[in-house]
Amino acid sequence: MSHNSFGHLLRFTTWGESHGPALGAVVDGCPPGIGLGESDIQPFLDARRPGTSRFTTQRREPDEVRILSGVFEGKTTGTPISLMIENVDQRSKDYSDVAKAYRPGHADYAYDAKYGLRDYRGGGRSSARETAARVAAGAVARLVIPEVQIIGWVSEIGGDPIDPAAFDEAEIGRNPFFCPDPAAAARWEGLVDGARKAGSSLGAVVECEARGVPAGWGAPLYAKLDADLAAAMMSINAVKGIEIGDGFAAARNTGEGNADAMRPAPEGGEGPQFLANHAGGIAGGISTGQPVRVRVAFKPTSSILTPVETVDRSGQAAEIVTKGRHDPCVGIRGTPVVEAMMALVLADHKLRHRGQCG
Amino acid sequence: MSHNSFGHLLRFTTWGESHGPALGAVVDGCPPGIGLGESDIQPFLDARRPGTSRFTTQRREPDEVRILSGVFEGKTTGTPISLMIENVDQRSKDYSDVAKAYRPGHADYAYDAKYGLRDYRGGGRSSARETAARVAAGAVARLVIPEVQIIGWVSEIGGDPIDPAAFDEAEIGRNPFFCPDPAAAARWEGLVDGARKAGSSLGAVVECEARGVPAGWGAPLYAKLDADLAAAMMSINAVKGIEIGDGFAAARNTGEGNADAMRPAPEGGEGPQFLANHAGGIAGGISTGQPVRVRVAFKPTSSILTPVETVDRSGQAAEIVTKGRHDPCVGIRGTPVVEAMMALVLADHKLRHRGQCG
Amino acid sequence: MSHNSFGHLLRFTTWGESHGPALGAVVDGCPPGIGLGESDIQPFLDARRPGTSRFTTQRREPDEVRILSGVFEGKTTGTPISLMIENVDQRSKDYSDVAKAYRPGHADYAYDAKYGLRDYRGGGRSSARETAARVAAGAVARLVIPEVQIIGWVSEIGGDPIDPAAFDEAEIGRNPFFCPDPAAAARWEGLVDGARKAGSSLGAVVECEARGVPAGWGAPLYAKLDADLAAAMMSINAVKGIEIGDGFAAARNTGEGNADAMRPAPEGGEGPQFLANHAGGIAGGISTGQPVRVRVAFKPTSSILTPVETVDRSGQAAEIVTKGRHDPCVGIRGTPVVEAMMALVLADHKLRHRGQCG
Amino acid sequence: MSHNSFGHLLRFTTWGESHGPALGAVVDGCPPGIGLGESDIQPFLDARRPGTSRFTTQRREPDEVRILSGVFEGKTTGTPISLMIENVDQRSKDYSDVAKAYRPGHADYAYDAKYGLRDYRGGGRSSARETAARVAAGAVARLVIPEVQIIGWVSEIGGDPIDPAAFDEAEIGRNPFFCPDPAAAARWEGLVDGARKAGSSLGAVVECEARGVPAGWGAPLYAKLDADLAAAMMSINAVKGIEIGDGFAAARNTGEGNADAMRPAPEGGEGPQFLANHAGGIAGGISTGQPVRVRVAFKPTSSILTPVETVDRSGQAAEIVTKGRHDPCVGIRGTPVVEAMMALVLADHKLRHRGQCG
Repeated sequence: MSHNSFGHLLRFTTWGESHGPALGAVVDGCPPGIGLGESDIQPFLDARRPGTSRFTTQRREPDEVRILSGVFEGKTTGTPISLMIENVDQRSKDYSDVAKAYRPGHADYAYDAKYGLRDYRGGGRSSARETAARVAAGAVARLVIPEVQIIGWVSEIGGDPIDPAAFDEAEIGRNPFFCPDPAAAARWEGLVDGARKAGSSLGAVVECEARGVPAGWGAPLYAKLDADLAAAMMSINAVKGIEIGDGFAAARNTGEGNADAMRPAPEGGEGPQFLANHAGGIAGGISTGQPVRVRVAFKPTSSILTPVETVDRSGQAAEIVTKGRHDPCVGIRGTPVVEAMMALVLADHKLRHRGQCG
Repeated sequence: MSHNSFGHLLRFTTWGESHGPALGAVVDGCPPGIGLGESDIQPFLDARRPGTSRFTTQRREPDEVRILSGVFEGKTTGTPISLMIENVDQRSKDYSDVAKAYRPGHADYAYDAKYGLRDYRGGGRSSARETAARVAAGAVARLVIPEVQIIGWVSEIGGDPIDPAAFDEAEIGRNPFFCPDPAAAARWEGLVDGARKAGSSLGAVVECEARGVPAGWGAPLYAKLDADLAAAMMSINAVKGIEIGDGFAAARNTGEGNADAMRPAPEGGEGPQFLANHAGGIAGGISTGQPVRVRVAFKPTSSILTPVETVDRSGQAAEIVTKGRHDPCVGIRGTPVVEAMMALVLADHKLRHRGQCG
Repeated sequence: MSHNSFGHLLRFTTWGESHGPALGAVVDGCPPGIGLGESDIQPFLDARRPGTSRFTTQRREPDEVRILSGVFEGKTTGTPISLMIENVDQRSKDYSDVAKAYRPGHADYAYDAKYGLRDYRGGGRSSARETAARVAAGAVARLVIPEVQIIGWVSEIGGDPIDPAAFDEAEIGRNPFFCPDPAAAARWEGLVDGARKAGSSLGAVVECEARGVPAGWGAPLYAKLDADLAAAMMSINAVKGIEIGDGFAAARNTGEGNADAMRPAPEGGEGPQFLANHAGGIAGGISTGQPVRVRVAFKPTSSILTPVETVDRSGQAAEIVTKGRHDPCVGIRGTPVVEAMMALVLADHKLRHRGQCG
Repeated sequence: MSHNSFGHLLRFTTWGESHGPALGAVVDGCPPGIGLGESDIQPFLDARRPGTSRFTTQRREPDEVRILSGVFEGKTTGTPISLMIENVDQRSKDYSDVAKAYRPGHADYAYDAKYGLRDYRGGGRSSARETAARVAAGAVARLVIPEVQIIGWVSEIGGDPIDPAAFDEAEIGRNPFFCPDPAAAARWEGLVDGARKAGSSLGAVVECEARGVPAGWGAPLYAKLDADLAAAMMSINAVKGIEIGDGFAAARNTGEGNADAMRPAPEGGEGPQFLANHAGGIAGGISTGQPVRVRVAFKPTSSILTPVETVDRSGQAAEIVTKGRHDPCVGIRGTPVVEAMMALVLADHKLRHRGQCG
C-alpha cells in the first residue's frame, strides 16, 4: 500500500519535489527482453516539457531522463527500471509569499493540515512537475503494449470546444495545444494569450483514445478497467472529472439510445462488429475490443495574479497573488500525462489478464 | 492485489453471483471495540432493497444480513467481519436467451472474451446484486467514522434535474427516488413509469456529500482521496462518469471564478472558513475540512424490451430482448451504494492518516 | 493490505473464529475453466479434520465445505470462490478460566494488549481451527498447478526423528502421524500417548516437498519464492522456524560442500541435471526446476494440564491449567496445512510468472 | 504488488544492479516531521560497507548515500524519500566466464530460466550489493521507532558458535565479525582467513534482538509480525533459515518446558513480567512486550575457487571457478542487513497498529 505507487503487475512509484535536486520513477514488473533506451522515453518528455511555447510555463527544464537500472545491453531484464530527471531551473525565491500564506485552490493548506509542514517551493510534491515522472514511466508502458495506439488531444479550453466534425488527427502535433481542429487552435491562441496577459487561467478538457486494445482486459469488480482509469486520471494534478465513453451524457440517454448493438464481424474479422461505442470500449469493467475512450476535466490553475482572500499559517487574514511561473492552462500539458496514465493502466491490465487467464 | 477487494487499512472483499446461494463481504481491518450488530447494517440494506416500489425491479429479496465473524459480545474484535446475505428469489429460467446471445451494453460479451465462460443467470457476478455486499460493508465503515455524515440523493433522471433552490434534505426519504426536490419527484413518477411501461430505461445522476470530514485525510499522489473516490464510484455497475466538486464545470471556469477563498475561522472555530467549495472539499488529494462532494453518472440499464441487434456465442447474428426483472432506472437504487462507497473510502483514509501521521 | 489475506494474483482471505457459527475463505484470482466441486476439497479437509484418532483433539467437527460462489456448471468462472465451513461442536463453557487469565504461550495477552478485548472461546481468531480455511483454499490452489505434486510428512516428534534411510512415501497415509518411517510411527504412538495422558504436549518438525515445479517461478527481491514460503509457513499457528533446503545446516557447511553442481540433461531431458539439492529448489528467490523443499518447526501447544504462573486481566497473579480439548502435538495436523500453504504460494507464483514473463 | 517493494504503511522499493551506475531505495509512508539527513544513514552503510577488513570482499565502494526527495529543511515531509548510492568500483571484465556458464548455487540459471536473459556482471540484480539500499532504508525506519533498540550479531561461523555465557554486547563493535564473544572472534580470524586463502567460503548464523517493542504490534493472520520477519529475512541474499525465539529447539521441547510464565509487573512496571522468552517476543503474531528475537542462517557463498561442474547457456557441460571479489563469509556483512530488515518490519507494524487501533 504505497501512497506513491500505481499499478499491480506493472507498478510504478514516483518520487521528487518541484524544487528538489531531481525527480524520478521506479517501474517494477516490466516484462524482460524489451528494447529500451533513453531515446524511447525522451520524445514523450519533450511533448510535456515546459517552456516550449508562450502558452505554457516559462520554467526551462531540459527534462533529460536517465535510466539507472533494469536494462542490460539495450534490453529490459525484468528487474526494476529506475528513471531519473534532474531539476535545473528552480527559482525558489519566487515562493517566499507561499511559505507564509495558503494559496486558495492549491494543496498548501491541506498539506499543512495533514503533515504539519510542507515543502512550499513550487508546490513541493503537489507540483505538476511530478507528472514528468509519470510520462517517463508511461513511455516504458507503451513498449509493453505495442498492439495499442494511444492518442490524446485537448477538446475544449475555457468552455470553447472543438468541432467534432473538424477532427483531424494529423493536426494534433501541429499546434501548441494538442488540438485536432485547426480552427479551434486558432481561436485558443487568443483565448490563452488573453488569460496569460491578464494573469488569469483557464480550464480544459482532454480526451484520450486507445485503439487496438483486445477484448478481455480488466478485472471485475474492484480492478475494473474503467475504475483503474478513473483513479489514474483523477490522480493527475488539477483533474476534477472523468468520463468513460459517453459519461454524463449517458445519464441523459435511454436504454435504446445508449445501446452498442453488435453484428457478426465482416469476413475475416475477429470478434463482433459494434455499431456504436457509447460505452467507451468497456463493459462490466472489461475491454470489449472497441477503442477505449476517456474524457478528463482539468480545472484552471489556481495560480493567478488577481489577489485572493486567504489565511496565513497562524490563521490570520491575508491576501495572496501567485507570482512564480505557471501554465495559463494546465490542461494543455496534461495531454501527454493523460496518455501516459492510459498506457500504464492498459499495460498493467494486459499483464494481469495474462496472469489470470493465460 | 485482489480483483474483488477495495481499500487498504479498512479493506473489504466481496463475493457472490446474482443467482448463487448467497453473496457477501469480508471487512478486514475494522478497529476493535466498536458496537456492531445486524441491526446496524439492515436499515442500509433496506434502503437499497429491490421490490419496494414499482420504480425498481420486482425481484423480492429480503436481503437479511448475517454477521458470521469478527464480533464478540456485540463489539468488533479487530478480526475480519464476514457478512452474508442469502439469495432467495432467483428465477434462473428467465435467462435462457441470455445464455445464447450477448446483451449489448451488458458485460456478457466481455466476460466471455475474458474468461471463456460465464454464469449468465441474472448477469452472474456482473449483476448489480453484488452492490448489496457493498452496502453491508459500508454500514460497518460508517461506524468507523462517526464524525462524518453522509447524504446521497438523485439530482437528475432522464435529463430532468432537480431545482437546486428547492433542495430539501428532509424530502430525500419521503419519496421512492431519494429526491430532495418534491416537484422533481412528482415529475419523475411519470417519467420512470413511462419508461417502465415502454420497456425502456433511464439514466440518472447521483450526488453525495460527506460532512464533518476533518482536514488531512487522503494521501498524495496515487492514494489521493479523490482518486480513490473516483475508483470506488466507477466500480459501481452502470457508472460512466464521476465529478469531484464542480467537475466538468470547472473546466469551463477561470482561476478567479474557481477560487475557494479563505478567511479566518469565526470566534471558536477551527481551520479557515472557506467562502466557496468549487473543489468539493479536496485539494491536492487531501481533504480540506469542507464537505466532500461527488457527482456520479449512471447510464440507463441495457435491459430493455426493444429488440437490439447482437451476435450469439458462435458469432452469428441474433436479436435480443431482455425480459427478466429489472430496474427501469438503476441510478435510483445506486444512491445507497454511492453512500456506502463514500463511507468505505473515508473510513479507510481515516485509518491510513492515523497510521502515517499519528 | 489486508491483514487476513495472502497471495497476489491468486489471493485468499480467511475469516472466522473457533467458536463462531462458521469459518471460511474467499479465493480470488483463480483462473477460469477449472473443474471444481466440494469433492475436490473435502479429502484435504478430512486429512486435517480433528477427532479422527486419539492423537488429536477430540473436538468432533465434520468440516464439511460448501462452495458459495465462483463456480458455474462445475467450472470456475474467474470470479471469487467463497468457501464456508460451519462449526458444530463448540463447547464454549470450557473456556471460562481463559476469559479471566492469560494462558502463557497463547495469544491471549497479546490480543488483549493490541485490541483491548478478545473472543476467548477456544482462542477465537488465533485458534488453529482457522487452518481449515487454508486447507480448503489450498485444495483450490492445487488445481491451478496440476503439474506439481506436493507431499508433506512429519519428520520428528518430541525430538525423535525419522530415519531418512527408512523413508517410504507410501507409509505416510498408513498411520495417524503422516510418518514415512513405520518404525518411527510405532515409537511415536507411545510418545504422543504419554504426552496426552500426562496433559503435556510435544513439538514436531514437518517437511514438505513440491515436485514438478518448473524453473522460473518466484520474483526477486521481495517476492522471492522462498520469502513467500517463509511468510506462509510462519503464519501457521505454533510455527517458530522455517528452513529452505539445507537451512541451518547450510550455515555449517562450506561453499564446496553446499554446491549444487549441474550436468547436461540426459538425452531427451529438459534443463540441467542437478547433482544435489542443498538449495531446496530455489536460487535467487526463483525455482530451479528441482524439488522445492521446506522444513517447518512446530512448538508444543501451550495448552497443558500442568499449572503455570500467569496474570489475570487486571494484572493480578493467577495460575492456569488449560482444560478444553487440544492436540497433544499440533504439528501432526499441521502437515496438511503446510501442504496447503505450499500449494497456495506456488499457484500464486505460477500466475505471477505468466503475467510478467508470458 | 511490486516484486521489489516491502512493507505496507512504511513501504520501500529498491532498484539497481551490482554493476549499474547506482542503486537506491524509495521509502514511502514515512511519518512527517522526523529529523533526517545523510548523516543519519551513513553510519549504517559504513557498517555494511565492503573492503573494510580482509574478511570481506575487496571491492572498494564508498557507499555514500544521497537523499533526493522527501526532506525539507532537515525534516521528513511525509512524501517519498528517494535514497541513491552510486557504484564506483565495478570491474565488469571479471565476469566474462559468468556470462557463458552458470555458477552453481548462484541465481544465474534461475534468472535465465525466468527472464531469458540476465545482467551477469557481478550477479546483476541478485548481487548482495542491493542490500546497501536496504540498510539505507532501514536507517530511516529506525527513526520511526525511536523507542526500539536493535542489536545484531554473528553467533556462529562455519559451525563454530559463540559461548552464550561470554556474550558481551560491547564487544560487537570491536572486531570485524560483529562478534559478542572475544574468544570466538579470535578463533574466527583463523577460520575465515583459512577459507579466504583456500578460495573457499563459510556459512554463518546471525542473531538479532529488538528491545523496547511494546505489546500489540503485528496483525493476525497473514500479517503476523513473525511472518513478516520471516519474509524479510528470507529475502536477504544467501539466507536459508529463520527462527523466532527458540525456533527449531522448540520443536524438541514440551509444553511445560516451552512455557513463558508471567507474573505481575514489579511496582511501577507496565504489562506482565515474563519469566522466560521461548517465544521470542511474539505470540499469535503480535508482540508481547518482550524482546523480539530472530536467528538467521546464511549459507556459504557459492563464489569459490574450487572448480565445479556446471552447464553453459547452450546446455553443454562446463566447469567454473568464480574469480571476482567476494566475501569469504557473507553472513558477516549480513548483520547490518538483518538489523535493517528488523527495523523496517517493526516500523511498518508500528504504523499499521496505530492505523487500526489508534
